[in-house]
Amino acid sequence: MISQPSGEATRSRQSRPARWIVGVDIGGTNIVVGVIAVDGGEPVARRILPTEAARGSESVVEKVAAMLEEVTAETVSTYGGTRADVAGVGIGSPGPINRDRGTVINTPNLGWTNLPLRDLISQAVDLPATLDNDANCATYGEWWLGAGRGVSSLVGVTLGTGIGGGVVLNGEIVHGTSDAAGEIGHMTIEFTGRKCTCGNYGCLEAYCSGPNIAARAREGLEAGYESVLTQLVDGQLDSITAETVYEAAVLNDPYANEVMADTAKILGAGVANMINLLNPEAVVIAGGVTRAGEHLFTPLRSEVRRRAFRSAYDACSILPAALSETAGMIGAAAVFKKIAFGSV
Amino acid sequence: MISQPSGEATRSRQSRPARWIVGVDIGGTNIVVGVIAVDGGEPVARRILPTEAARGSESVVEKVAAMLEEVTAETVSTYGGTRADVAGVGIGSPGPINRDRGTVINTPNLGWTNLPLRDLISQAVDLPATLDNDANCATYGEWWLGAGRGVSSLVGVTLGTGIGGGVVLNGEIVHGTSDAAGEIGHMTIEFTGRKCTCGNYGCLEAYCSGPNIAARAREGLEAGYESVLTQLVDGQLDSITAETVYEAAVLNDPYANEVMADTAKILGAGVANMINLLNPEAVVIAGGVTRAGEHLFTPLRSEVRRRAFRSAYDACSILPAALSETAGMIGAAAVFKKIAFGSV
Repeated sequence: MISQPSGEATRSRQSRPARWIVGVDIGGTNIVVGVIAVDGGEPVARRILPTEAARGSESVVEKVAAMLEEVTAETVSTYGGTRADVAGVGIGSPGPINRDRGTVINTPNLGWTNLPLRDLISQAVDLPATLDNDANCATYGEWWLGAGRGVSSLVGVTLGTGIGGGVVLNGEIVHGTSDAAGEIGHMTIEFTGRKCTCGNYGCLEAYCSGPNIAARAREGLEAGYESVLTQLVDGQLDSITAETVYEAAVLNDPYANEVMADTAKILGAGVANMINLLNPEAVVIAGGVTRAGEHLFTPLRSEVRRRAFRSAYDACSILPAALSETAGMIGAAAVFKKIAFGSV
Repeated sequence: MISQPSGEATRSRQSRPARWIVGVDIGGTNIVVGVIAVDGGEPVARRILPTEAARGSESVVEKVAAMLEEVTAETVSTYGGTRADVAGVGIGSPGPINRDRGTVINTPNLGWTNLPLRDLISQAVDLPATLDNDANCATYGEWWLGAGRGVSSLVGVTLGTGIGGGVVLNGEIVHGTSDAAGEIGHMTIEFTGRKCTCGNYGCLEAYCSGPNIAARAREGLEAGYESVLTQLVDGQLDSITAETVYEAAVLNDPYANEVMADTAKILGAGVANMINLLNPEAVVIAGGVTRAGEHLFTPLRSEVRRRAFRSAYDACSILPAALSETAGMIGAAAVFKKIAFGSV
């Protein structure tokens, strides 16, 4: 669960109460590293750099170590104390991962297989470290210091290139029996439906990921619908992205609004499933799609209300995420805090 | 959470270790009352009587009290000791319920609204009592002493007139924030699909409850499919029930097998959703449909394998329930044990 480095820094650190935790969020595109006070609050220092996964895992570990030294030095310079005030490092990585061993089992985006990421980083910086899945970390970050602050149970859904998710019950991440829980994106919501990149049919992701929102919009235009979308991309329908669709929706384009309303209804069926199954206090939606604002949330809430049991719907707040790109880093730090200190 | 009666029986009971718990499962059709040793094992005494809900809640409470005295007397007569060896009563009731208050919020089947069932029974028998939802109890019973014995996390699905469900994580029932968790039957698995009795479209229950299995079979026959089913009901298609379909499937009728295979595929999508979301050690399927045996479980497992992530599928046993009609009663006793003794 937690690495146990035995260097000098670790021993001397034990003599006084820890003040800081470093959070590390490794994504396919960027690495985010930040310092958070053990008691929470805004990150006191942070860095974002491109992952450049093609340079190999050693290069990523070196980059994380360098970023950690930078944010730690900045923290010490601003707030006083020494590097020994850092309790340890929480790491979030795309999965699947093995938490006990601290390994990344495989990540197509990063090209890693059975990489002992936790111990590599722990050894590189001579600090104890924990590893969890990036989607779990993003959800836990929103629970600790974001939109879900103060609730006891929360489901997080991040709509991006894929759809990631996480479940927090009684303040703990639900990891499942083989660290595979939280795959909300591959929930079947139309078993005869659209083909998904995972090989199945009718997954939530096959409708509501960024590329699928764009694909559904393109399909309608190719079938003859008229929309400002066509002008926004100078007639190059292949250039339509989910962002273009949100942009057109915010311009009140009727067709883009229809695509967003469909997205909201389908996402609403998925959210209602989670509410009916887990009856959480909050569902937090993250990702670019939330830029559509009430064009998304108004029809989303109304579909969830239609599909979920009333007492479960009434007990649940459906909220946009509050932390955006720092959620994963903050959540990774929260995972370290939970394991090292017993509670967050 | 737990009622606190103050009568003589309660006080004298505190002087020695409790040996027994009484479980009570109140259903729309029958009431099951049994005695279980605090340490588990087979029920040592039990009774089943018709609920006769039309006679009113007072009559139901009186009947439960009389059944409790009978099973307790039988236990004492067989195993020695006194009635004071009974620690208390766990009650399962159709919901929604409020566990804190011990009330049944409303049950269309029984005609109850805001009935303080826990305290009524507790007072009638002068024993502490707990109340939980019947589907949660059935799942917890299978987890304590049934098919899910020894696992740490389990999802239970009961296919009957409706579809009930429950979730156990780390040995605890997931109740959610307003005691509404576990509504697996109303998970959307086809958002443009069949109308459900709950008013929505495409719920798992709209395909896989007993009446809907029968309805789907009838629809195919009305559309011209040939099947031994027609002979089994002497041409009276309205008489087809889910049981008739299982019977025909066991006779290897191709059409009935197709209906069962469809049922298994759709149920498989629902089970895969729970596996992808919660990554449990076991999913336990209960209800008449399990009589179809491998006609159900073989295609079910293969659909789940197709739809769930591999590591989550590999970590999960998909099993028929082991306790049948006593699961709810045993689980209700387990809920009492958990609340009164802190663990099961």
